[in-house]
Amino acid sequence: MIAEKMKEMVANSSAIRAMFEEGNRLAQIYGPENVYDFSLGNPNIPAPEALTKAMKDVLLEEDPVELHGYTNSNAGYADVREAVARNLNERYGTSFEGKNITMTVGAAGGLNVILKTLINPGDEVIVFAPYFGEYRSYVNNYDGVLVEISPDTETFQPKLVEFEEKISPKTKAVIVNNPNNPTGVVYGEETIKRLAAILEAKQKEYGTDIYLISDEPYRELVYGGARVPFLTKYYDNTIIGYSFSKSLSLPGERIGYLVIPDEVTDSEEVISAANVATRILGFVNAPTLQQKAVARCLNEKADLAFYDRNRETLYEGLKKAGFSCIKPEGAFYLFVKSPVEDEKEFCTRAKKYNLLLVPGSSFGCPGFVRLAYCVAYDTIVRSLPKFEKLAAEYREME
Amino acid sequence: MIAEKMKEMVANSSAIRAMFEEGNRLAQIYGPENVYDFSLGNPNIPAPEALTKAMKDVLLEEDPVELHGYTNSNAGYADVREAVARNLNERYGTSFEGKNITMTVGAAGGLNVILKTLINPGDEVIVFAPYFGEYRSYVNNYDGVLVEISPDTETFQPKLVEFEEKISPKTKAVIVNNPNNPTGVVYGEETIKRLAAILEAKQKEYGTDIYLISDEPYRELVYGGARVPFLTKYYDNTIIGYSFSKSLSLPGERIGYLVIPDEVTDSEEVISAANVATRILGFVNAPTLQQKAVARCLNEKADLAFYDRNRETLYEGLKKAGFSCIKPEGAFYLFVKSPVEDEKEFCTRAKKYNLLLVPGSSFGCPGFVRLAYCVAYDTIVRSLPKFEKLAAEYREME
Repeated sequence: MIAEKMKEMVANSSAIRAMFEEGNRLAQIYGPENVYDFSLGNPNIPAPEALTKAMKDVLLEEDPVELHGYTNSNAGYADVREAVARNLNERYGTSFEGKNITMTVGAAGGLNVILKTLINPGDEVIVFAPYFGEYRSYVNNYDGVLVEISPDTETFQPKLVEFEEKISPKTKAVIVNNPNNPTGVVYGEETIKRLAAILEAKQKEYGTDIYLISDEPYRELVYGGARVPFLTKYYDNTIIGYSFSKSLSLPGERIGYLVIPDEVTDSEEVISAANVATRILGFVNAPTLQQKAVARCLNEKADLAFYDRNRETLYEGLKKAGFSCIKPEGAFYLFVKSPVEDEKEFCTRAKKYNLLLVPGSSFGCPGFVRLAYCVAYDTIVRSLPKFEKLAAEYREME
Repeated sequence: MIAEKMKEMVANSSAIRAMFEEGNRLAQIYGPENVYDFSLGNPNIPAPEALTKAMKDVLLEEDPVELHGYTNSNAGYADVREAVARNLNERYGTSFEGKNITMTVGAAGGLNVILKTLINPGDEVIVFAPYFGEYRSYVNNYDGVLVEISPDTETFQPKLVEFEEKISPKTKAVIVNNPNNPTGVVYGEETIKRLAAILEAKQKEYGTDIYLISDEPYRELVYGGARVPFLTKYYDNTIIGYSFSKSLSLPGERIGYLVIPDEVTDSEEVISAANVATRILGFVNAPTLQQKAVARCLNEKADLAFYDRNRETLYEGLKKAGFSCIKPEGAFYLFVKSPVEDEKEFCTRAKKYNLLLVPGSSFGCPGFVRLAYCVAYDTIVRSLPKFEKLAAEYREME
């Protein structure tokens, strides 16, 4: 008999994963080349060659006892943490030290570590719909209460008036995801400044600390010169969660970091609790070989031109077919309006053409569907006639 | 302001880790060769060459998109899970399939996954003192209640009479650690049969399921022909947590697995919940390169002769110095009786000689200290005169 809380979790288990597993099933029946799987953010381009080389090099150069051993601190190798801090300082003009960096088991691990560190049962955590559905589970892990800000389905920018209204004395944290999954929009500097001002005022009004947790696995994936503000510069109580999964195409290796700046209230206590949380949640430390490898590749990134071509082709193709969606500036997702109110019905109909899409309800935004375009270019090209047929079906129904 | 629960955790933070960090500090002052750090189970022998070769080979041979991507199931690569199942079947005459295996972020990750899967707030989890202190944190993560069985300080075998008395209708799980950390004793077949019979009878009496969780990172580390029973063969509701950390000297890489046999009550539900727990706790999947690498090394193990020599030399040396301890049959720990009741005082006095020991209170067994002998042989040899001086201090006080 499994735990009560898990029964609910299993029942509501990730629609994204379910669709991904459905894709594997269909691929076995129809052949993988005839399935258009836009379900999962699993990059289709290989890790940069420099990263593969770095892995080989550390295997050759480092003492295996040190390389594969526990790290001295649960937060990771001192030299790796310092390298990450230096690299951020160079890129963003910040002044982090190694102690401000906690290496984590991807961003998912990092978010769990920081939520375990901060959240008391009943504490409220605000998210802006549409949001990555896993936030709900992560907050639930620590008996926090997820508070949703409704989506602005025109721009998919955060609704700041509603945000201000929903901040309460119980608000402990706000999670933003920039560039955003599932919409691909970027929250620009003006938005962030307004958001920070609201948080500052509310902290004063309630005499509380409200931590802004910025989940940034897509930081490097931006197109057309879009700029992603670095949030620690706008609001003191900011904690950043990063993952190398998307920027270096290694989501399976589980490597990322948290930045906990000195400016955060009770910074030392938060850093030391994050260290303990890393241990007791069972992560113990981020995988060591990958710590050493990514530290050698901090300026590398995935082939953006590949994603950009996918973005343009899919966006234009869908528009031509008659679908409506906002053009993403970052990440590798398109968030498309469902031609019918019930977007799950739309997903089911799409599946008849072996088109795998994820319902927007999974992201707190029904009426839309998410397409992950981190797939082979060919998949996109060959999927477009299917999307056209799908659109035609809906036109006939009108 | 960190979470209330974390304040307690930070305050009681692992004495093992604290001692390990103290060791690093002393090493900087006195030089690493003059510090005798017996605090942490961080293997001092390199991973088998076959494992390093396997890592290099998978980097050469496997498609990087597949190798570093998310696995199709959160439980891990299908071929890796099948290889682990086959290997267990060959060694133990079991009949597991890939579906019974969940690849985990080490044993610590695996224990968190299975406790998240099973434990409701208030459920009781029984442990036999002395026990690995982290069990307390893991159970606390899910608001379970740890119930200790007092230690038999003569044999360090489980006290089965007390065990039987303490099983209640709220008992959801029992954790055993075989070979044992911190004592190095092995629970033999007769003990396991009696333990299983008690559990069977109590399940019937209360109409409940009591899961036996066997934490086995030291399974391969046994000396003098000691045999470690494979627990799924003795009790249906057994779940095994394994780690390659010690057997392959790669604790930093975070790779292990859970075995959830078909014989477990609601097996399919437990397997599927463990899959979801792996995802929502933020592990997502065990590091993929290491999954592929260990799958090629399932019959490899660390150099046992190295540990055995350390065991003999340290055990004989301590006995000669006048200390008293049970001779371990497995793992790489010695559990030594403190010459004074307050073993923390003993640890403090030992530190004057740069001898780093962990107080038994961390394992629910005050009056003893743990020495991890997975250190360089030379460290042991050079530590013995220090232990003799330390023993002499106590003799003078008598």
